Amino acid sequence: MALIVQKFGGTSVGTVERIEQVADKVKKFREAGHDLVIVLSAMSGETNRLIELAKQISDQPLPRELDVIVSTGEQVTIGLLAMALNKRGVPAVSYTGSQVRILTDSSHTKARILKIDDQKIRTDLKAGRVVVVAGFQGVDEQGNITTLGRGGSDTTGVALAAALKADECQIYTDVDGVYTTDPRVVAQAQRLEKITFEEMLEMASLGSKVLQIRAVEFAGKYNVPLRVLHSFKEGPGTLITIDEEESMEQPIISGIAFNRDEAKLTIRGVPDTPGVAFKILGPISAANIEVDMIVQNVAHDNTTDFTFTVHRNDYSAAQTVLENTAREIGAREVVGDTKIAKVSIVGVGMRSHAGVASRMFESLAKENINILMISTSEIKVSVVIEEKYLELAVRSLHTAFELDAPARQGE
Amino acid sequence: MALIVQKFGGTSVGTVERIEQVADKVKKFREAGHDLVIVLSAMSGETNRLIELAKQISDQPLPRELDVIVSTGEQVTIGLLAMALNKRGVPAVSYTGSQVRILTDSSHTKARILKIDDQKIRTDLKAGRVVVVAGFQGVDEQGNITTLGRGGSDTTGVALAAALKADECQIYTDVDGVYTTDPRVVAQAQRLEKITFEEMLEMASLGSKVLQIRAVEFAGKYNVPLRVLHSFKEGPGTLITIDEEESMEQPIISGIAFNRDEAKLTIRGVPDTPGVAFKILGPISAANIEVDMIVQNVAHDNTTDFTFTVHRNDYSAAQTVLENTAREIGAREVVGDTKIAKVSIVGVGMRSHAGVASRMFESLAKENINILMISTSEIKVSVVIEEKYLELAVRSLHTAFELDAPARQGE
Repeated sequence: MALIVQKFGGTSVGTVERIEQVADKVKKFREAGHDLVIVLSAMSGETNRLIELAKQISDQPLPRELDVIVSTGEQVTIGLLAMALNKRGVPAVSYTGSQVRILTDSSHTKARILKIDDQKIRTDLKAGRVVVVAGFQGVDEQGNITTLGRGGSDTTGVALAAALKADECQIYTDVDGVYTTDPRVVAQAQRLEKITFEEMLEMASLGSKVLQIRAVEFAGKYNVPLRVLHSFKEGPGTLITIDEEESMEQPIISGIAFNRDEAKLTIRGVPDTPGVAFKILGPISAANIEVDMIVQNVAHDNTTDFTFTVHRNDYSAAQTVLENTAREIGAREVVGDTKIAKVSIVGVGMRSHAGVASRMFESLAKENINILMISTSEIKVSVVIEEKYLELAVRSLHTAFELDAPARQGE
Repeated sequence: MALIVQKFGGTSVGTVERIEQVADKVKKFREAGHDLVIVLSAMSGETNRLIELAKQISDQPLPRELDVIVSTGEQVTIGLLAMALNKRGVPAVSYTGSQVRILTDSSHTKARILKIDDQKIRTDLKAGRVVVVAGFQGVDEQGNITTLGRGGSDTTGVALAAALKADECQIYTDVDGVYTTDPRVVAQAQRLEKITFEEMLEMASLGSKVLQIRAVEFAGKYNVPLRVLHSFKEGPGTLITIDEEESMEQPIISGIAFNRDEAKLTIRGVPDTPGVAFKILGPISAANIEVDMIVQNVAHDNTTDFTFTVHRNDYSAAQTVLENTAREIGAREVVGDTKIAKVSIVGVGMRSHAGVASRMFESLAKENINILMISTSEIKVSVVIEEKYLELAVRSLHTAFELDAPARQGE
């Protein structure tokens, strides 16, 4: 008897057969008495096909018109699912973002939701209809079609759940939940029953790409319970929710995230004067290169070393920029390394437990893994290591923080 | 310095290359100083692809949801053309039917336009923008997406031209105008400079499928000058307009239309009582079979013969219905023939010229072509003949009514 928003992604609606399966699933929930709002992505591949079409006209497609084109992808899937539901005797009606009225700003291709008009949806729900909404899109004040940017369907789901004060927002994906780490690296990785929004944010941004970061932020802000589930397998998935009273059993660390898409750059022998960080990172940011970790050591002989990481795709561009900067500010040299990996331990539990970082370093030292960079936040410790040690590091940390499945079951 | 509505069909926007060509064409008109509203169909094949997708879900797709799905076809092309125009330095903006606000009734998949809000379009035109509108679609009072049914983009073009009081509505197609008859049958067939709405209606409904009948009716009703042109060839096309003062040079007959999609059915020895026509045609119509020509001869020995034509696809269904009727009303027998063709001469000129029909019959008699049925209207005479004589009949009539290209040029 709950009000549930369910979001299905592109692969879940990638074929007519899959749409029929989604309809079967929705029907079951409906028969259990729940009120349902379904948010859909475009059929997988369709958004890319449409973007490709637009790029044939122009390398830099006009954002307003690109949104007109790309938003048709979800419009097709909502119509198909509404049909499939009605065929099953489940009354259903589809709405585009514009029809619901998901009001956004006018930043085409990356619009932000300002307000959702819930009137139509509430009327339909009251009348016993399942409401099927196109994800990823909205409309601005002037009536122009907007899109929220890639993966924005998750955000649509959460925003609708917040507007409707839904009991839960369920995100159906191709994984059955959030894991302590990537099961392809650690066989003993286990599904988490529960994780906090903050932890999920750290996990997501660190490469466990289950949910869109924006959607998690949104859910946290409006306190919408978010559940990650598998589209076609049964199971409770992982509930992402606020940090309730820290229970006894709560593990210190929720998971181990990692990322091998980064490269690191160091500028050595930088004269240690105020404003030097800006002189180094300003040109990088002006070149539209995003920087992840930044480490600067205390000065030594009036010079310092400054190290940061960027996406590997941006490595050579960043190197060129940095070499110019080095000449200008009179730094000694620029060195870089693309064969690195970042490993992070994430968990709200570490707030109240001292020594978590040292336990991490100890565990890596035991395996003779050299730490190249360290950065910490309240609920996360990240280290950069040589890429070849990545799997070994993740496995040893997974064991060290007692995340391995058999061990915990045996406790 | 005119306001022109230009409509391009599915083959004219069937590929990105073609859309670029359309943009080139539109740019030329814009540079000549015209205000332009462009109406587009979906890329050819796209509407069928979308319908096919819907039919995979349901044999009888829910009309409301089918409209949601199918209307995406035009939404893609308008975005692409608007991009292509802007790329050429021609400011342009796209609108869906719903964005313009083309208000229709709620008859999904075959909606009728009720009203067009011209405010946005006028503002854009004033600002020097080309307005690109999705054909074939609208929105009902409740905000539901509707479609006008197949070929409805012509109707959108005419309706916009009427609402904006445009100087001309140009329909771009894959033919360079309306011909005196099918050039594949008569090599001497010629393009008409001008034709009246009434003539065009008779030509269209008789099988010269250049324009949607509804669009022509609409244009006639609101007196919107309509021009049929080739999308990618230069030329003045054919202007469809009201019947101005009948000029001296106006030919008696404008064209020869024909149709080989029909079959005829005769019920013989029908007791000649009042209401018999309804007894015969009522059940046919109840079976959703459309009847074209109907001929009943004067009674003879208190019985009569009753003949009508239907589409060949409906022939066997109609035969079954008719045989039941024959038993019920005590008619002698039912006979039919699918190997027939209908040939019609069309022209407003025949109103003021006696003997047009007899000239037609004479011409057919000369070729020993037997006439099986005759039906006449004010500006049209149709005969049904054996299908094998079709080409011969059309050619001889084309010559008899002085429509052949070389002969007329020599006059």
